[in-house]
Amino acid sequence: MTLPDISSLSTVASIGGGPIGGGWAAHFLARGFDVRAYLHDPAEEPAFREIIETAWPCLTELGLADTASLERLYITSNLEDAVAGAAFIQESAVERLDEKQDLYHKLGKIVGADIVIASSTSGLLMSDIQARCDIAARTLVGHPFNPPYLLPLVEVVGGAKTTTDSIDWAMAFYQHAGKEPLRLKKEIPGFVATRLQEALWREALHMVANGEASPEDIDRALRFGPASRMAVQGQCMAFHVACGEGGMAKNLDQFGPALKLPWTRLDAPELTPALRNAMVDGCRDMAGSESFKTMAAERDQKIARILKVVRQKG
Amino acid sequence: MTLPDISSLSTVASIGGGPIGGGWAAHFLARGFDVRAYLHDPAEEPAFREIIETAWPCLTELGLADTASLERLYITSNLEDAVAGAAFIQESAVERLDEKQDLYHKLGKIVGADIVIASSTSGLLMSDIQARCDIAARTLVGHPFNPPYLLPLVEVVGGAKTTTDSIDWAMAFYQHAGKEPLRLKKEIPGFVATRLQEALWREALHMVANGEASPEDIDRALRFGPASRMAVQGQCMAFHVACGEGGMAKNLDQFGPALKLPWTRLDAPELTPALRNAMVDGCRDMAGSESFKTMAAERDQKIARILKVVRQKG
Repeated sequence: MTLPDISSLSTVASIGGGPIGGGWAAHFLARGFDVRAYLHDPAEEPAFREIIETAWPCLTELGLADTASLERLYITSNLEDAVAGAAFIQESAVERLDEKQDLYHKLGKIVGADIVIASSTSGLLMSDIQARCDIAARTLVGHPFNPPYLLPLVEVVGGAKTTTDSIDWAMAFYQHAGKEPLRLKKEIPGFVATRLQEALWREALHMVANGEASPEDIDRALRFGPASRMAVQGQCMAFHVACGEGGMAKNLDQFGPALKLPWTRLDAPELTPALRNAMVDGCRDMAGSESFKTMAAERDQKIARILKVVRQKG
Repeated sequence: MTLPDISSLSTVASIGGGPIGGGWAAHFLARGFDVRAYLHDPAEEPAFREIIETAWPCLTELGLADTASLERLYITSNLEDAVAGAAFIQESAVERLDEKQDLYHKLGKIVGADIVIASSTSGLLMSDIQARCDIAARTLVGHPFNPPYLLPLVEVVGGAKTTTDSIDWAMAFYQHAGKEPLRLKKEIPGFVATRLQEALWREALHMVANGEASPEDIDRALRFGPASRMAVQGQCMAFHVACGEGGMAKNLDQFGPALKLPWTRLDAPELTPALRNAMVDGCRDMAGSESFKTMAAERDQKIARILKVVRQKG
């Protein structure tokens, strides 16, 4: 079964009338696709259109595809009509396992076995969602971050029945469609980005619960502290570059003992030689032949520009 | 005892020759102060000067004070000489409790009782550092984020013997000196920003240890996922605005049950009515009279600009 040719693919379907479904529709329109949107209830249409119209100025600033047009949006509440002719389906329906299972069961009856269906689910596992789907091999998670028309990340992972060629195809398609797909190594609850954010969020809730910080303290701490650096370098490279020539190895040797300190309610894993090497090798590979001086200078320049943006009024 | 007049204050001392001490010196020079730098070992001077010279182009881009000049840097390895005439001392010495205690003991003998001494410590508590200092009332933590010449956050908290007027003065001084001081409600290990970052970091290490993600996966997930939004809105307002008119209340009602899900190895606190109200009220206060539509549009515009910066090559 040959999967659709990505470079000539022109029509995608987006299922779901909420902020995620609307955000995906806006993104695909901006990238120059025909978008067939399925709304469970026709009454959702005004709010759905507003999401897309609100997103459009920013998508324009980021750069529209030559063929991008809001005219290329088609809205229907007939599922079969929505997926007709679509070479890819992004599903952003309500986050309930039984409803998703019903939906994938229906899609399996009306969609060709060469069509990849990606779920925006943030909390469910594809192994569960695809349980009653006839084309389970083509179903996978394509988890965006909110707002999906702006943040480039899409976490891609299959379920037990998903085939590797479906995942390969989805990775290539998302890249083609202007996203930054991240292929997950395992199907873990919350995937990677949400797990990182959730750890931070739960620590924030602990601090508010204990009277250690207010919500405003949390937000100021992030905005004027680590967040801009995290946007430029993530967290591994941030520590790698901060330690100069010693890099991540120096960081782990110096701050390894701090992993035992009560700097969060989260217990750290044992810093085994295997973990140390994985961190050190990973950072060395990312740095490639770039010198620490160049990496630090590039970091500084980008952070300075980001801080100017962060501090802009209204 | 009257503390120094902030608006006419012209000379500060920076203790420590590493990246944090050098970063502070660069920041204060850029804000137009005379900086008296203490290096434990004169041999540190070339590396110390390089930190400052590397920082200067970015500080110039962010905007130097009219009176800023690299000529206003004085370097010495005589502690008494370093603090002579300084109206504020930023201490960034090595992160060992016994050495800090010795240093504060010495400073207590040679510094006037009207001079505030702030420690850059990231892991020690001021109640411990100030134990043997004669002017403990004036000592407090002023914890920067690396690089300290760029990231605006300074976490301010006193120890058991610190007086409120010292903390008030430090808050006003840091603000005057172009920083974003955050006054902590309690002296907790890791303070606020590091606790947030550390929870995220430990979850990242767990994922690498379990083969769930590589360091590169972690960094891509942050850079193209939540980090740019976090730079604009923090995490509380990010959730508040993402939920539209329902705000944080809707977020907690909808995702409260997810706090029990294994989306990180960190257990969440109980979502009591008190915690729920603290989160909801805190976000409502931050939003003020701003409409959700305006807040979302401002978020989008800033994220779009940040993503352009993040994606710039070299």
